[in-house]
Amino acid sequence: MEQNENRRTELSALGEFGLIRRLTSGIRTKHPATLLGIGDDCAVTDQEGHVTLVTTDMLVEGVHFNLSYHPLKHLGYKAAVVNISDILAMNGIPRQMLVGMAVSNRFSVEALEEIYAGLLAACNKYGLDLVGGDTVSSNKGLVLSLTVLGEAERDAYIRRSTARKGDLICVTGDLGAAYAGLLMLEREKKVLEADPGMQPELEAHAYILQRQLKPELRTELRPLLAELKVKPTSMIDISDGLASETLHLCHDSGLGCALYEEKIPIDQATARAAELFNINPITAALNGGEDYELLFTIRQEDYEKIRPVHWIRVIGHMTEAGKGHLLITRSGQAVGLNAQGWDAFIPKEQRNAEKTFPESSV
Amino acid sequence: MEQNENRRTELSALGEFGLIRRLTSGIRTKHPATLLGIGDDCAVTDQEGHVTLVTTDMLVEGVHFNLSYHPLKHLGYKAAVVNISDILAMNGIPRQMLVGMAVSNRFSVEALEEIYAGLLAACNKYGLDLVGGDTVSSNKGLVLSLTVLGEAERDAYIRRSTARKGDLICVTGDLGAAYAGLLMLEREKKVLEADPGMQPELEAHAYILQRQLKPELRTELRPLLAELKVKPTSMIDISDGLASETLHLCHDSGLGCALYEEKIPIDQATARAAELFNINPITAALNGGEDYELLFTIRQEDYEKIRPVHWIRVIGHMTEAGKGHLLITRSGQAVGLNAQGWDAFIPKEQRNAEKTFPESSV
Repeated sequence: MEQNENRRTELSALGEFGLIRRLTSGIRTKHPATLLGIGDDCAVTDQEGHVTLVTTDMLVEGVHFNLSYHPLKHLGYKAAVVNISDILAMNGIPRQMLVGMAVSNRFSVEALEEIYAGLLAACNKYGLDLVGGDTVSSNKGLVLSLTVLGEAERDAYIRRSTARKGDLICVTGDLGAAYAGLLMLEREKKVLEADPGMQPELEAHAYILQRQLKPELRTELRPLLAELKVKPTSMIDISDGLASETLHLCHDSGLGCALYEEKIPIDQATARAAELFNINPITAALNGGEDYELLFTIRQEDYEKIRPVHWIRVIGHMTEAGKGHLLITRSGQAVGLNAQGWDAFIPKEQRNAEKTFPESSV
Repeated sequence: MEQNENRRTELSALGEFGLIRRLTSGIRTKHPATLLGIGDDCAVTDQEGHVTLVTTDMLVEGVHFNLSYHPLKHLGYKAAVVNISDILAMNGIPRQMLVGMAVSNRFSVEALEEIYAGLLAACNKYGLDLVGGDTVSSNKGLVLSLTVLGEAERDAYIRRSTARKGDLICVTGDLGAAYAGLLMLEREKKVLEADPGMQPELEAHAYILQRQLKPELRTELRPLLAELKVKPTSMIDISDGLASETLHLCHDSGLGCALYEEKIPIDQATARAAELFNINPITAALNGGEDYELLFTIRQEDYEKIRPVHWIRVIGHMTEAGKGHLLITRSGQAVGLNAQGWDAFIPKEQRNAEKTFPESSV
């Protein structure tokens, strides 16, 4: 940060168009489908016989992220990942991104360049063209608004509402780690506030911190399922927590569900951190969110095809609506599944825990 | 407003998903190309052999709009118009909209419904489907971020960078009225602050106020030019002012220009208001902005085709780059054309005048 302070360029020194030029001068487009990128009234994309997917998310400083935890470059990277995740959640291929930023004069040009560097790193990693956006001033703080376009073959995109009774509920990777990472960041911040000379003990918790600060996406699922000839019957990404996302699939498909606690994948690092913070790791998985794994349903007859894939776990099944939304505990008890995830409009002091990147696309 | 206060529902009473349901429950899609609207991870659109245009704009309370002038429904309407305008500026047909809103608890659910009512009124008027978005909380104020998708036939969209030397510069409608309307709103606000019992004298200035508060778009240009078989060589919409937009066409096309002051269309109502405020109406046209008319260039041989159209005016021509960017005054003097438009990052007290809806898509 000190380095940035040494070459602090005030936003007013560049002006609006100067700033846009500086932030976007190195950006080149890569996709043949991107006919026109930054620099005109609109970006232009071309899809030959495919459908276009489009999603948008807003992220507000102090609500969705905290700059004392999130380095600016990581913030840009994560903001991109959160949005791209919605394209993967439809079984689509992400293609283009547009970036809206509202920034106060508190931020230097270099700070915005850091955010752009993170956005571009994610675009490069996941193969997107950054094709446009809008940069405006705000009176206070930072608001990011990203829009991502993707494509899919016409019969290949997958909705939330098309699960059927008896379908198996599957999840990729492991859950709860991003939330454990957030708890760790909050603890270390308090330690540092009490004694600024302390060295934070973060290295031992690299996995959960990476899941919170620089999450990666499950891009391997789509090609794998295509190869296995498994078409999920419904799909969603896990941004608000397993409970909330499962309830979305149930609600939108008009079904109930049974999830099995013992099947929910938790990494050992998450379990250790949960013990440290005296919380149940299943709570982190159900309600923590920000894992950006994929939750999907498949037909029972496809079970054998996905069984050998070590990073896909079957965690339950869809039931008829009247059966309710149940979590079967390790002791065999059936308890109601509740979404206790972050709620944007409940005042902070009334929430159990603040999440940094909740997602609420409509 | 009082009526709204009587049925104030706190945002926290509905929760995030409840709010989204309430704001979007009545929304139906109309286009065959809209395969999927609100309610999943992404919206899905389908273009058969067309290109997709996409544009995004952010609008920040206190920077781009002032809620003491802009009723919420008008704000929503204008925000939509500002974005849709970018699709028209590419000669495209607007098709779908996504809406991001960051709102503080200061706003009631009814207030957000008013904004949505304005957005939907514009979508209905201009034939767009509202297909998705994101509603989040902010610590302070209101930020709107809109994304609009449009389509065009592959060889029909028009860029800023393709004007040629000798091309005629044309503009639709008249200019400067939106800025005159803003000056009028500012004056009436001061009068009201000094004496709250005063009745504002707004009716006599209906035209300029409508241009500021509820601008409409020049949708008739695209079909007219198609009928006349005139393809503009470059095009942009007038959001920041005629000077700034002309300089964009020149810069992006690598050309100079000559504009003729006497040709710039100014409505009588704008001229009267300019006299009242002791400003030159040409200044309002050149630097006021927010007119959302279209500025475009045509080949000289197309002049006879557009000459009979009373709402299109030829105001100058493109020259080679070395000739500079000139405004030829009524007295025949050639002066340099400067963009003195609003600049988002120059502190307010240093600006000559604040504009409410500048546009800065990259």
